[in-house]
Amino acid sequence: LMEAKYDHVYDLMEYHRLSSGISPSSSSASTASANNNDAGYYTADGYLDVDQDGIPDSEEYSSGGTTAMDDVNDHLARHWFNFGKSPYLTFLFYQTLFVLCAALFVYIEPVSGGSGIPDIKCYLNGIDVPRIVEFKTLVCRVMGVTFSVAAGLPVGKEGPMVHSGGVVAAVISQGRTKFWGVDTSFSKFSDFRNDREKRDFVACGAAAGIASAFGAPIGGVLLSLEEGASYWSTNLTWRAFFCAMITLGTLFVVRNQDSKWGQANVEKLFSLGEFTSIGGGSSNFSVWELLLFILIGCLGGLIGACFNAGSEHLTIWRMKHINHSKKRRVLEVLAISMLVTTVSFVMPLLWGRCTELPTDMQDWTNQEKELVANLVPFNCVPGKEYNEVASLYLCEADVAIRQLFHFRETGETDSSTFSSAALFLFFIPYTTLACIVYGIAVPAGLFVPSLLAGAAFGRLFGHLLHKLDHTSGTFADSGTYALMGSAAVLGGMARMTISLTVILLEATGNMQYVLPLMMTLMAARFTGNAFNEGIYDINIHLKHIPFLEPEVPTIAERHEIVAGQVMSTEVKCLRPVERVGIVYDLLKSVGHGNFPIVDTASSGTLYGTASRSMLCTLLQRRAFGQPHDVNNGQHHSSTDGGVDYAELLGPKRLSPLVQWDTIERVYPRYPKIDDVQLRPGDRNCWLDLRPYANTAPYTINETASIQRTYRLFRTLGLRFLCVVNHTNQVVGIITRVDLLPES
Amino acid sequence: LMEAKYDHVYDLMEYHRLSSGISPSSSSASTASANNNDAGYYTADGYLDVDQDGIPDSEEYSSGGTTAMDDVNDHLARHWFNFGKSPYLTFLFYQTLFVLCAALFVYIEPVSGGSGIPDIKCYLNGIDVPRIVEFKTLVCRVMGVTFSVAAGLPVGKEGPMVHSGGVVAAVISQGRTKFWGVDTSFSKFSDFRNDREKRDFVACGAAAGIASAFGAPIGGVLLSLEEGASYWSTNLTWRAFFCAMITLGTLFVVRNQDSKWGQANVEKLFSLGEFTSIGGGSSNFSVWELLLFILIGCLGGLIGACFNAGSEHLTIWRMKHINHSKKRRVLEVLAISMLVTTVSFVMPLLWGRCTELPTDMQDWTNQEKELVANLVPFNCVPGKEYNEVASLYLCEADVAIRQLFHFRETGETDSSTFSSAALFLFFIPYTTLACIVYGIAVPAGLFVPSLLAGAAFGRLFGHLLHKLDHTSGTFADSGTYALMGSAAVLGGMARMTISLTVILLEATGNMQYVLPLMMTLMAARFTGNAFNEGIYDINIHLKHIPFLEPEVPTIAERHEIVAGQVMSTEVKCLRPVERVGIVYDLLKSVGHGNFPIVDTASSGTLYGTASRSMLCTLLQRRAFGQPHDVNNGQHHSSTDGGVDYAELLGPKRLSPLVQWDTIERVYPRYPKIDDVQLRPGDRNCWLDLRPYANTAPYTINETASIQRTYRLFRTLGLRFLCVVNHTNQVVGIITRVDLLPES
Ligand SMILES: Nc1ncnc2c1ncn2[C@@H]1O[C@H](COP(=O)(O)OP(=O)(O)OP(=O)(O)O)[C@@H](O)[C@H]1O
Ligand SMILES: Nc1ncnc2c1ncn2[C@@H]1O[C@H](COP(=O)(O)OP(=O)(O)OP(=O)(O)O)[C@@H](O)[C@H]1O
Ligand SMILES: [Mg+2]
Ligand SMILES: [Mg+2]
Repeated sequence: LMEAKYDHVYDLMEYHRLSSGISPSSSSASTASANNNDAGYYTADGYLDVDQDGIPDSEEYSSGGTTAMDDVNDHLARHWFNFGKSPYLTFLFYQTLFVLCAALFVYIEPVSGGSGIPDIKCYLNGIDVPRIVEFKTLVCRVMGVTFSVAAGLPVGKEGPMVHSGGVVAAVISQGRTKFWGVDTSFSKFSDFRNDREKRDFVACGAAAGIASAFGAPIGGVLLSLEEGASYWSTNLTWRAFFCAMITLGTLFVVRNQDSKWGQANVEKLFSLGEFTSIGGGSSNFSVWELLLFILIGCLGGLIGACFNAGSEHLTIWRMKHINHSKKRRVLEVLAISMLVTTVSFVMPLLWGRCTELPTDMQDWTNQEKELVANLVPFNCVPGKEYNEVASLYLCEADVAIRQLFHFRETGETDSSTFSSAALFLFFIPYTTLACIVYGIAVPAGLFVPSLLAGAAFGRLFGHLLHKLDHTSGTFADSGTYALMGSAAVLGGMARMTISLTVILLEATGNMQYVLPLMMTLMAARFTGNAFNEGIYDINIHLKHIPFLEPEVPTIAERHEIVAGQVMSTEVKCLRPVERVGIVYDLLKSVGHGNFPIVDTASSGTLYGTASRSMLCTLLQRRAFGQPHDVNNGQHHSSTDGGVDYAELLGPKRLSPLVQWDTIERVYPRYPKIDDVQLRPGDRNCWLDLRPYANTAPYTINETASIQRTYRLFRTLGLRFLCVVNHTNQVVGIITRVDLLPES
Repeated sequence: LMEAKYDHVYDLMEYHRLSSGISPSSSSASTASANNNDAGYYTADGYLDVDQDGIPDSEEYSSGGTTAMDDVNDHLARHWFNFGKSPYLTFLFYQTLFVLCAALFVYIEPVSGGSGIPDIKCYLNGIDVPRIVEFKTLVCRVMGVTFSVAAGLPVGKEGPMVHSGGVVAAVISQGRTKFWGVDTSFSKFSDFRNDREKRDFVACGAAAGIASAFGAPIGGVLLSLEEGASYWSTNLTWRAFFCAMITLGTLFVVRNQDSKWGQANVEKLFSLGEFTSIGGGSSNFSVWELLLFILIGCLGGLIGACFNAGSEHLTIWRMKHINHSKKRRVLEVLAISMLVTTVSFVMPLLWGRCTELPTDMQDWTNQEKELVANLVPFNCVPGKEYNEVASLYLCEADVAIRQLFHFRETGETDSSTFSSAALFLFFIPYTTLACIVYGIAVPAGLFVPSLLAGAAFGRLFGHLLHKLDHTSGTFADSGTYALMGSAAVLGGMARMTISLTVILLEATGNMQYVLPLMMTLMAARFTGNAFNEGIYDINIHLKHIPFLEPEVPTIAERHEIVAGQVMSTEVKCLRPVERVGIVYDLLKSVGHGNFPIVDTASSGTLYGTASRSMLCTLLQRRAFGQPHDVNNGQHHSSTDGGVDYAELLGPKRLSPLVQWDTIERVYPRYPKIDDVQLRPGDRNCWLDLRPYANTAPYTINETASIQRTYRLFRTLGLRFLCVVNHTNQVVGIITRVDLLPES
């Protein structure tokens, strides 16, 4: 029964869960240790004592403040408040150190830089990006993102988390890795050792990644779906759902360790803080404000489009001037990190005003009290005053988002917590910095920075509205506007709709925002799409990756192109029984991944296909017969031009057969053609491809329309397609690159 | 640009939205008028004065009680409380009347009976169920469901609503209908007049249906996705999302008509009532209760499996004994309706106890106060007491669900509102009735009845737990358990996971239940699947519809079947230029939908395919040439056996060409072969199929594995597939029925 096979899947998912559970927590643990090393410097300043993983983890929390380092802290605290420029230098020193570490990991494994979401998107699209799902990449990415977040750069951990989740899943599904030296493959995992299953695991892992990053299981599934929908199936839906559920369950249990037998703490469920309803039975916004939300969405789409355009130009510039040398990339990271540090110090200094902490907090919720505790007393009296701009720049991004979302607006002017000017002084430079940082050689997510920028923008928008009409009730509170701003800016950059709606709903825990969020995100998507593509698509296109869009490119559609017009016509083919020398030379001379096998006996009819990896394996394992095996009795070995040995051999097979298992077992590390050593006499031997050929490849007629070809490629996730004519003769071959709009 | 095409889509969706907006409201309006006709009987009893659509619509509300009929009411009220059996008879009379009306509509259009979700599921799977997406079906279903819900049967309006949404979308996308007599087709809709686009519209419409039934836009999109995922694409995702958003937006604005400029009313957002957090910062359940929720899930799965098994046996029995005669079907409806009425009267009588209404409601929310007002004073003092069992049976299902979810448990025994015995006396008979009713000839959804049964079950479970430990805090409140019970039972019947999670979250508005709901639904699905299939799949299989499951059937997979083993070998083929007589006879003699065209010149190579609808159109439009056209100069018209006229003709076309447009324009009402009248001399004419043939059909090699064939079918949504050998000769044909596990 199928249950047996499913059981394997469940087992895997259990492992999977564990690792997903471990992956974020190891990430957070290492961040925590990084913090602890420097607890002297950080907790003393009072602005980095929440651990970097955004999880208000009580153990870490309690261990943070009251260690033996307290006297060091004291010393440093004095140091800090007394010696002018010194804290800046200290800060700069540690940031640089951390950034260097992050850059080091990217130096070791270059594909671990950047956001990770484009990589996963390509992988799910069916593109074999080299080294993207390997254990080494995973380690480098997890360590790298830990350091880059710890360094206080405007980067998020979500993209890398999605990538890590995917890699964890892939590594587990393969049941082994080269990294540990030993072959840990279990026999029962062999079912999963093919591209298709591995892709499913990666999709599930990505969902689990979002589930653990935002506590958003359904949003994670939807993100996997929206970004990698080409091979979606019902089965995959609930597998991903299951993974995400287990991940969230693990997180929930871990976070509620202390209150396992009592009521669970709601605050720990929602990673961006719960939005509570303000009036008892009425919602936080009024019906006509939906129009305002749409307006915010449009503005956010505009901001996102600007961001994307800026980022595109920067990336092009980087590709020209920096990316070719690893040294330059590291230097760039250093320079930009210093810029970031300087800006986050100079801005609060420029602001230079101290605001008093709210004193009357009787009826405030725990969440709000905690936020107050996190305000940064930059050059002000700690415990009494805070610097508004510093609180935004120097807090961790998660905390800053929560402050913008949930900080109560006391007083009558309605903008007392963070004044409009402070928001402005934060929004513009921060967005610019985020744009510059995105793309440097550290692992860097985009979700959190754009949420933060958007929150500032939204709150600013709210303030302006409140200027129009003081009385609360006319307009929703600024927190609601901050949420909409977040959605708008993130949606304007990434152009996702349904998944972002659900992620934000799950992260803020208030269902009444479903309609406003949907409208904002839709508006942002439309506005943004009027100008350019989403940031991830821009990245993919700049890298010239043959990514297949869900729909046929319009140019192709308009010109009524048929398959015969886009195919490559000079097809390199093989015969069913072929000379080893010819095969070897072919593999050496061209880099194609697949070769049609044509039946020369019947004027080039398609017999099947052979993949490069299979041919290499066959050559390496010497699965070929000696010339005399064939010529037994016929004696015309020299006239192999026109003679068809397949016919001469008939049903007889050419000696040392390689088991199909043997070929599959080495997945995905097939030998390269350069690894193959031919002995002197080998070139004249015969390679019988008939037992190994894929005899029923997908084919398409040369008169088929481009739409049909595209659909076949896209829905089946093909790598190549043989083009045949009416009599099944191979007339061409189409791969992904032939289907791209440019060609 | 693509925008131009998109614009059309938007336009359509706007129409779409309007109709979706209209569809439910017309439904509710007609229910309301049905109520008003009999307002005397209903509002007097005090238990049917909330209109049937579950929307506490203030206009209808106010018009309900204070009409000129008040004195009639008074009269009847006295009647009611004084003359023993008479109210039962009155009630019975009206129920029977309503049920008869509902049955009448199904009598007119048989496919409008049942749930509607299986139909939509089949349609999205690519099956052409006759008359399923026509305007007449829509009207009959909307009217039918109005009456069947008004009759108080244990049926829901969600399945029919999903179906209606789909039909509205389909009808609009076609831009016209035969029903109105006039051809309303707009030229700009012609892009959408094909199966694929129509399917997308149906999917969007189904999403909008759920969005309006439960106020669950994202859940609607996910339901469309989970149930009809075969052709899912990113584009479709956001189209469906957009539709659902517009639908919800319309509903939101309409429901908040009175408070447009103030805060919107939260209560109107959540169709099953909002769950408010009980403790300030803590969740309504504790961590270890997740295990209890999983247990509920398992029990719910068991109940669902029993329900499905019972329903399956009943359906088989019905198919044998009842379904063949329309009269019997109506009689069955009558009998069952009387049974339902009797049970809902006898049970409260059996209970016969009066419970006092809660008096101290100072700190209760509006929602709770409203629920108290809806309790039924069956044989008790109205305004002071109520009958627990009657309140469950005789309230409308939506209200009963809300009562079970949200009714506060006052007093120390913790089960004072609805006692365990009352719940028990409701749960068992109601579930049985729902099982019997599902499948009779009225439009009947399953969502609401199973939610109600599940809520009773869950609350019962909660009571039992509270018996173990009185102190609140150890166990969650019974309302939470009722919610989990609902999820479990519905999940156990329908076996959906992610979409039900989101629908329930959106309907109850509290995000903290995301993890418990996920776990419950997962457990229910697993447990249920261990016994049988989901109720919708059972229905589909019993009807012998060639539904393609997402995965290859295991039997086929185990036996390593290849395409050549499942295909039909005696393929009926046509030649590129064929005698009209031969084509006519072929179409008359076999019912197949598609015919390969083989090139007899080159020993049966596949040239293309022709569909029955195209052939019929060609014949009807007389697109054939006279014999002498062909024989010009050759004079061997009698020896057409071996001669290939295609070769003789060369590039010359045979006269009256039919424009491709002409063939497409009649979609989807192609002429039948019986509509075609051949004139005496026609049989010898020639039909040139070459301009019309689909020259690049999808083909598969006879050695391809069944998995590959299945995937091709399923992912591309094919209706047939030509099987060819290595030289492209047609050796067989595969349709959906050949791929079913039975064959
Ligand atoms: N066997 C072949 N004979 C001739 N041309 C080929 C063959 N295979 C691929 N091509 C062509 O070579 C060009 C390069 O294609 P591409 O690099 O995508 O092929 P590939 O390496 O086989 O694919 P992939 O990189 O996905 O493994 C394309 O235009 C493609 O049509
Ligand atoms: N042109 C044909 N020649 C011979 N057999 C056919 C042909 N088309 C279909 N069949 C076979 O007839 C049987 C009945 O198939 P089915 O009713 O599904 O075909 P259909 O009517 O063409 O499809 P549909 O009902 O989806 O339009 C199947 O076993 C199928 O393989
Ligand atoms: Mg290549
Ligand atoms: Mg048929």
